[in-house]
Amino acid sequence: MNYILKNKSHIERIENLKDSISALNRLLLRVKDEERLFNEICNILVKNNNYIFVWVSLKGEDYSVKPVAQCGFESSYLKNIKIKWDNSKYADGPTGKAIKTGEPQVMQDIKNNPEFRPWRKEALKRGYRTSVAVPIKHGSNIIGALNVYSQYKNVFDDKELKFLTEVAADITLGVIKIRSEKKLKNIINGTIKAVSIIHKYRDPFTSEHQNNTAKLSVEIAKKLALPKNTTDGINISGLLHDIGKIAVPSSILNKPGKLNEHEYSIVKDHALRGFEILKNIDFSWPVAKATLQHHERLDGSGYPYGIKGDEIIIEAQILMVADVVEAMTSYRPYRPPLNLETALREISIDKGKLFNREAVDACIEIFKKDNFEFDNSFHLNDWIS
Amino acid sequence: MNYILKNKSHIERIENLKDSISALNRLLLRVKDEERLFNEICNILVKNNNYIFVWVSLKGEDYSVKPVAQCGFESSYLKNIKIKWDNSKYADGPTGKAIKTGEPQVMQDIKNNPEFRPWRKEALKRGYRTSVAVPIKHGSNIIGALNVYSQYKNVFDDKELKFLTEVAADITLGVIKIRSEKKLKNIINGTIKAVSIIHKYRDPFTSEHQNNTAKLSVEIAKKLALPKNTTDGINISGLLHDIGKIAVPSSILNKPGKLNEHEYSIVKDHALRGFEILKNIDFSWPVAKATLQHHERLDGSGYPYGIKGDEIIIEAQILMVADVVEAMTSYRPYRPPLNLETALREISIDKGKLFNREAVDACIEIFKKDNFEFDNSFHLNDWIS
Repeated sequence: MNYILKNKSHIERIENLKDSISALNRLLLRVKDEERLFNEICNILVKNNNYIFVWVSLKGEDYSVKPVAQCGFESSYLKNIKIKWDNSKYADGPTGKAIKTGEPQVMQDIKNNPEFRPWRKEALKRGYRTSVAVPIKHGSNIIGALNVYSQYKNVFDDKELKFLTEVAADITLGVIKIRSEKKLKNIINGTIKAVSIIHKYRDPFTSEHQNNTAKLSVEIAKKLALPKNTTDGINISGLLHDIGKIAVPSSILNKPGKLNEHEYSIVKDHALRGFEILKNIDFSWPVAKATLQHHERLDGSGYPYGIKGDEIIIEAQILMVADVVEAMTSYRPYRPPLNLETALREISIDKGKLFNREAVDACIEIFKKDNFEFDNSFHLNDWIS
Repeated sequence: MNYILKNKSHIERIENLKDSISALNRLLLRVKDEERLFNEICNILVKNNNYIFVWVSLKGEDYSVKPVAQCGFESSYLKNIKIKWDNSKYADGPTGKAIKTGEPQVMQDIKNNPEFRPWRKEALKRGYRTSVAVPIKHGSNIIGALNVYSQYKNVFDDKELKFLTEVAADITLGVIKIRSEKKLKNIINGTIKAVSIIHKYRDPFTSEHQNNTAKLSVEIAKKLALPKNTTDGINISGLLHDIGKIAVPSSILNKPGKLNEHEYSIVKDHALRGFEILKNIDFSWPVAKATLQHHERLDGSGYPYGIKGDEIIIEAQILMVADVVEAMTSYRPYRPPLNLETALREISIDKGKLFNREAVDACIEIFKKDNFEFDNSFHLNDWIS
């Protein structure tokens, strides 16, 4: 009887551990930020595994150990304790040692182990009898520790330790996933910012034009209820669509008079040049293609290839509307700006012929109903509704 | 007795599943490429869980199902079968359905289930009696399927299925990790390529100069036995260190005569301009700082800040040596190139004073012993050893 009972409780315990692993796996697939990752892991462990208190700490550069998430009976425990990973006595407990050594630290008897002295009083007050600190690490790089407390003795045997080591590995995976997604986003944003600074040195008109085109394109995409991801791509395409103008000499770009045929052909080259530049970057969106096609027109009268209708991707169909409205209403060295009413009338005339009908309607609504305004100094804000 | 036995085998089986999960977690933390991920997962499952055959397939855009890894008794099974995820009969088996529906598909009886008919003969020949196909997915995005075969009946109960669903989730995590690391690398490389194209439009001398400086800097860093990661950062810094010259007017950059004081101060600005551009990109290396400091000198005689010795990061200390050697030995509109011997003598005179002693020695050795050569057309290859 005893044997069966022991087995039963053993099975139950293993089942609990397995349930936690399942819950963690589901969590890892969906989680997007670290705070949430840490907190949900604490919740899962307290809920499924009968721990009285669980917390996650990150290693600070200044030898600090910073609690970042917790669950269970805490009662200000973390406020009342001091943990470090330096050479002081505050680093001699399980957490400090786990972070220093990279190995799990089991405290089987909080009451009597001298190493736990600095935290003993506060721990016993709250009924913590045993604890373990498992390092959260990526190879030899220690990120922090997972700290688990129990009110029972002999909980942290080899099986439990193995399980908690898995949990720590899961936390590492989650952290890697979140940080690399964030890093990617930062790199993309930083790149766009860097390229836009480069561009600005050469050509302030184009730089501001791109910001405004992006802003208006995004509003059109939203009005057309395009998916968030497509809209994100349109934003980036807007910000970069004229990058090819960097290959056009300033003397042509800023020529006060009318361009001759040769000069105009150099300007028109910018769509293809932009494509050549941007195709190297492995964006998740068709940024290079939208750039290539933003001077095409639905009826085939555009450039560089004179493609028609659906051959032009939706991103470019939206971009071209925002592009012409922004360009017409802003100042250029060779002409004054059109007022907005005139510009909207212009695209309205060509809707369905040169421009996507819905995109034009959306654009007009954005200005007339939503009072959209461009941001920049080269614009006349002379719209009268 | 029967009950205990049943429990015992149940415990063993769960232990096996747990061992597999542990092995998978360790794998996920270290794996760097997909092929390896898939193959090792197949190995773990066959080794720990008594399956006769395990394979992983990826969903192809053309409705194909492509086997990418396998382990166990296969005996050309995959060569002899055809699986799709379209509307044909080849999509009616467990794998096709798993990919189409996103739900696990259990085939409890390969011998008698009519849906397995297209693959039955080949499966029975090899002793496969039951099978399951679990979709590998990220949210609603189906990536492929994990396919598992057993020679026993009733193996794929709820517990086993739950376990294999975890394994599939682990595969997804691994794929995400690998693909996002790869994506990050691609984006960084693509960005550098894009920026270098932009740069080339304006200033072909500088563009080629950067490539050569990067190449020589990397060799110096290797000779100094710097860590691989530092060397990678030096490469990128070399490729971008003169990006700030994009802010210098071509008329000054390519002026055939000597620059006046004002013009020279504009040229000197390029270090700070480069820093301003590059600091936006969240590289893992001090690319912006190396760019800022590449015209500083050990004795404080450099620019923009006149900092000294260890205030200059090692990346910049290496970069500056490569930079001056490359510059001196290459053609400029305002002067012919120096020959290499003279250039190396020049840096040798200033070693320990302006330049890092070891970097200079390494540089000289690279040319004299390793026969290093610059790549470009503006170089005289007139080195006589």
